Amino acid sequence: MNTFSHVPPGFRFHPTDEELVDYYLRKKVASKRIDLDVIKDVDLYKIEPWDLQELCKLGTEEQNEWYFFSHKDKKYPTGTRTNRATRVGFWKATGRDKAIYSKNNLVGMRKTLVFYKGRAPNGQKSDWIMHEYRLETDENSITQLL
Amino acid sequence: MNTFSHVPPGFRFHPTDEELVDYYLRKKVASKRIDLDVIKDVDLYKIEPWDLQELCKLGTEEQNEWYFFSHKDKKYPTGTRTNRATRVGFWKATGRDKAIYSKNNLVGMRKTLVFYKGRAPNGQKSDWIMHEYRLETDENSITQLL
Repeated sequence: MNTFSHVPPGFRFHPTDEELVDYYLRKKVASKRIDLDVIKDVDLYKIEPWDLQELCKLGTEEQNEWYFFSHKDKKYPTGTRTNRATRVGFWKATGRDKAIYSKNNLVGMRKTLVFYKGRAPNGQKSDWIMHEYRLETDENSITQLL
Repeated sequence: MNTFSHVPPGFRFHPTDEELVDYYLRKKVASKRIDLDVIKDVDLYKIEPWDLQELCKLGTEEQNEWYFFSHKDKKYPTGTRTNRATRVGFWKATGRDKAIYSKNNLVGMRKTLVFYKGRAPNGQKSDWIMHEYRLETDENSITQLL
């Protein structure tokens, strides 16, 4: 196994859900080495969606998807509800979570969220969409912003 | 610079015309080392398009484009015309060649060809399309099959 400082010309990062969960997120949660530091750590609830582009960009090409790791933030220290608010808005789940399989085994789930400007239960819906991936056995999450 | 034996999970080979010409083909023609042996050598005129898939596949995923290097074959030893016939058909150019630029400099040209079964001037048009790349200064070519 080599250590990668970059990938050869012509390769683009277009991971499948399975690769995101079963390789990148699984390694991250286990604190294992990932071949290439292609997914950045961010604090999602301290950053607005439009500021993620600069932090998470890969190389010089145009992107319309950005990948990052972020810890879930609890709404209350003793509770299980997740705080999904940023300074100017909040992320709100939409639709059903999608199951992610690897060789017919369930390895994770993908939640889709939409960014609203303002404060719940009000707020103005935006075009920012996020996919939040989680391992089936773990609370940590990797998120993909579209 | 590392030597790559593979690329990390999640990366797909989707090169731009500029990368194909100005990195891969330029290095190949100069016999320089290419980071990853991702483009195979084939003798295009000894192989039918549908047999290229197996030779040129990358990893295990589904592909609908295949990349390879091939030398041009002359129709007659003393001439400049290119032999583009295979055993069961031939490649025929279509449309105009497209100029390929890198930082506003012309670096190569891309010719589009369609595969016909049978023998010219007859033959039955197929859905196989090829892009043949050439350096502006060199007769060698890299080709991309769609």
